[in-house]
Amino acid sequence: MLGLFIELGNLKKLKRTGWVLRGVPNPESIADHSFRVALITFFLADELKKRGVEINPDKAVRIALLHDIGEARITDIPQPALKYVDKSEAERKAVEDLLKTSPLPEEYYQLWLEYEEGSTLEGRLVRFADKLEMLIQALEYESAGASGLDEFWNVLENLRSSEFYGHFKDIVDGLEDMRKQKRLL
Amino acid sequence: MLGLFIELGNLKKLKRTGWVLRGVPNPESIADHSFRVALITFFLADELKKRGVEINPDKAVRIALLHDIGEARITDIPQPALKYVDKSEAERKAVEDLLKTSPLPEEYYQLWLEYEEGSTLEGRLVRFADKLEMLIQALEYESAGASGLDEFWNVLENLRSSEFYGHFKDIVDGLEDMRKQKRLL
Amino acid sequence: MLGLFIELGNLKKLKRTGWVLRGVPNPESIADHSFRVALITFFLADELKKRGVEINPDKAVRIALLHDIGEARITDIPQPALKYVDKSEAERKAVEDLLKTSPLPEEYYQLWLEYEEGSTLEGRLVRFADKLEMLIQALEYESAGASGLDEFWNVLENLRSSEFYGHFKDIVDGLEDMRKQKRLL
Amino acid sequence: MLGLFIELGNLKKLKRTGWVLRGVPNPESIADHSFRVALITFFLADELKKRGVEINPDKAVRIALLHDIGEARITDIPQPALKYVDKSEAERKAVEDLLKTSPLPEEYYQLWLEYEEGSTLEGRLVRFADKLEMLIQALEYESAGASGLDEFWNVLENLRSSEFYGHFKDIVDGLEDMRKQKRLL
Amino acid sequence: MLGLFIELGNLKKLKRTGWVLRGVPNPESIADHSFRVALITFFLADELKKRGVEINPDKAVRIALLHDIGEARITDIPQPALKYVDKSEAERKAVEDLLKTSPLPEEYYQLWLEYEEGSTLEGRLVRFADKLEMLIQALEYESAGASGLDEFWNVLENLRSSEFYGHFKDIVDGLEDMRKQKRLL
Amino acid sequence: MLGLFIELGNLKKLKRTGWVLRGVPNPESIADHSFRVALITFFLADELKKRGVEINPDKAVRIALLHDIGEARITDIPQPALKYVDKSEAERKAVEDLLKTSPLPEEYYQLWLEYEEGSTLEGRLVRFADKLEMLIQALEYESAGASGLDEFWNVLENLRSSEFYGHFKDIVDGLEDMRKQKRLL
Repeated sequence: MLGLFIELGNLKKLKRTGWVLRGVPNPESIADHSFRVALITFFLADELKKRGVEINPDKAVRIALLHDIGEARITDIPQPALKYVDKSEAERKAVEDLLKTSPLPEEYYQLWLEYEEGSTLEGRLVRFADKLEMLIQALEYESAGASGLDEFWNVLENLRSSEFYGHFKDIVDGLEDMRKQKRLL
Repeated sequence: MLGLFIELGNLKKLKRTGWVLRGVPNPESIADHSFRVALITFFLADELKKRGVEINPDKAVRIALLHDIGEARITDIPQPALKYVDKSEAERKAVEDLLKTSPLPEEYYQLWLEYEEGSTLEGRLVRFADKLEMLIQALEYESAGASGLDEFWNVLENLRSSEFYGHFKDIVDGLEDMRKQKRLL
Repeated sequence: MLGLFIELGNLKKLKRTGWVLRGVPNPESIADHSFRVALITFFLADELKKRGVEINPDKAVRIALLHDIGEARITDIPQPALKYVDKSEAERKAVEDLLKTSPLPEEYYQLWLEYEEGSTLEGRLVRFADKLEMLIQALEYESAGASGLDEFWNVLENLRSSEFYGHFKDIVDGLEDMRKQKRLL
Repeated sequence: MLGLFIELGNLKKLKRTGWVLRGVPNPESIADHSFRVALITFFLADELKKRGVEINPDKAVRIALLHDIGEARITDIPQPALKYVDKSEAERKAVEDLLKTSPLPEEYYQLWLEYEEGSTLEGRLVRFADKLEMLIQALEYESAGASGLDEFWNVLENLRSSEFYGHFKDIVDGLEDMRKQKRLL
Repeated sequence: MLGLFIELGNLKKLKRTGWVLRGVPNPESIADHSFRVALITFFLADELKKRGVEINPDKAVRIALLHDIGEARITDIPQPALKYVDKSEAERKAVEDLLKTSPLPEEYYQLWLEYEEGSTLEGRLVRFADKLEMLIQALEYESAGASGLDEFWNVLENLRSSEFYGHFKDIVDGLEDMRKQKRLL
Repeated sequence: MLGLFIELGNLKKLKRTGWVLRGVPNPESIADHSFRVALITFFLADELKKRGVEINPDKAVRIALLHDIGEARITDIPQPALKYVDKSEAERKAVEDLLKTSPLPEEYYQLWLEYEEGSTLEGRLVRFADKLEMLIQALEYESAGASGLDEFWNVLENLRSSEFYGHFKDIVDGLEDMRKQKRLL
């Protein structure tokens, strides 16, 4: 398992290419992103459960922690490359291989698939948290002076049309409000 | 909750001061570290359970995700400062305050305490994973050319005397072997 | 004394956390800041003396050079942490310990206290220079594109109400003018 | 053509992932690398011609300048990803697309193919220069303290078995000598 | 020649001081700049030839690759220093010395002079491309949030009054349009 | 004077080129260096006075603070450039110009000259402190893993043959001892 732990270290070294290509100086790593996605998922899932939604928060957290690990092998291949590379297929195989030395390879891979395919409520919550995290980060960069990130905000539509929007309207709308003022808080 | 998510972003911006003060260039963030601690905890806990140990892996993962969040407020106060600052007390209050807007403040705080005090098996596993992660990172820096990190390796003794050593002897000893050769793999 | 010189090197490695937490990329070190504070103090003190003010410029420069050295041990603990950490008390002890191997420990510590407590004209001039330096730096970051630094500019009021404002009105007002145009020069 | 020039700017922003994954701090960009490959090709080709080899140095320089431009779209997909991504095919299409707004799309693409396939002397010289440049860079990193780059030096064999080795024995052997002493000069 | 290749590596390590002094975080290296100047020259020269202009594109590319190599020895001495340093004279000698171990020292030096003195069409095209590249980079930094770069845009006048403006009006005007909107594309 | 303070900010932005060219990642700024030179001078001068040497510590500190300010205009022109640039002459004029808006231009310039020419005990002490600081920094980089800095250590001879060596034998020899073990402390 030590080899797996070492390989996961790649996620600390690799910067998220979406920011790199827009000229954000010293942007976050993939691990930085994944960490907050996991915490957001954790809190949102517990909140949903508290409100009576039938969801398994622990499963959601597990999916969140796994959702980007394939990038330890294939890196964060950015948008402009997707025309030339079948990223989804590549990631699928990379995740499968990477998990081979983990305690429950098949189980973890199935969890990852729930994210990739959005086939379960938990998987879709991670997709929601993944986008939310990205927008919070975009806002942070913009509040600190970055520009040229408009494109990212198209994702707000996805959040709005999500099944979770009803529950987290405050967060999504609050985020947009802050964005309009380009200010945190 | 948006305010909490934004504040957690500090963990991406703050570099781990242990590395900074030893002159590691561009070291990992606190979030980078926490992310791998969470994944290590996740896999080790599942492995323990597979082997029949009575452990709650989901609780362990939750503790791991929470274990350093206090640093979003108090930063990663380093070793030489501990003579002058009551870090433990400061962190305790910071964690408590920070969690106030989370879904389950009291419950999360109790989880954090399990880590801080090592009062449960899950809390102690996160302590184990926290140290293991640090050593893997030290090894990575050393394999890439860093020196002056000998002091960190004293922690190996803690891993050896831990209740988990019997289960993860391969990992701990493997790490030490790699270190002797200053090589990954 | 070599040990002391080495420890002062920490001030080069540690970034000023005020900027870090606002997302300024690659901000200045504590040493960077202290260096300009010392030169500003140097020039302002000489200017005051030239104008007939009874001030000891050499003492002021000494205070300036010492004013942040405690951070070599306790780091630049930022604003949000002050609720949880008694920074002033911690710094006091750290400065005292750090200076033990210096040529005149007691004398230097008293100089540092003059800054900390603002108990002498020279100590207060360094406080003035410290804030002025910070605002010049804020202006530089803003002129280069940074935003989200509004909060820092509240300090302008301190400069305005200072006993030195009468003498350095041109500088303080000039700074504010530049800020309004977000342009240097 | 302006759009093309802007897109080439990506090559400045993207770090070479081979170094990134080995933990080299702040490694060179793809543009950094390509620049020296072009100059090495330039000088080696002229030297070959001086010695009576039938080679077109200008064509070689052109190929060198084009050899990595596909990475402006697909990024520097690293070794561990090649099992999952058909990089060669992806690059081929990316280069073709990218060049569409250039003055001589078809001609440039053919030049790029000469590199990719090693089908001409000039194309093979760029392959030689590409590897040589990488090793010089590895040596520079190692001389500055980096380690963990042994794997790269396997490429020395390729240089040795190349048709150009006879001409540039001094350079290749000199490089190896320096490496043995881990010193430049 | 290996010594020369190693020395050219300095161009990767040295940041362009024009950006550094305006506070652009982590700006491009001299090599980054030179690389795109070479490609811009390459494409513009071919385009001119296609349109029937009597120009030698290969010579232009060679000049572009050589145009900044003197900075491997004298560094990128910035504007404010020119009052105190005879940069042109220094660069002349540095280029001459640097090229001594190259295959065709005298020939290359003459090419460099064509750039320095703008004495040939090819030399002037590199001067045009050098300025154009700088403005594209300025636009990229501005689009990403940088400010304080207005001064650089005075160079637009040089592009406008150049003999090449008639041919590349679209590019120059397009650049200015983007600048007005502070947006790429 | 505000303009002068702003210009001094360049010293924070400019990295020391000696380290840059040897591949030290993210090396210190000129201001970082100057800050510790000032503190070292401060302590050494007081120590000398304590021992009965006739020295003016305050003058020494002033010289230390001024010794590198010319680089705010001419930058840290490195060793390989000195063959091509009359750095001393350039610095002299730059310092003179830069100080024009300071409170005591002529007096400060004379202080700077004492450093440049080593014409007074205080000026020579700053020269000693300047070299000592550089070696401490070299040691710190080496202890953290840097190599390729041997050349810098030739300066040890200068320290040994200095008039101050008798007084600071412990420091200089202690530094060399640490170097032999490549360890701090």
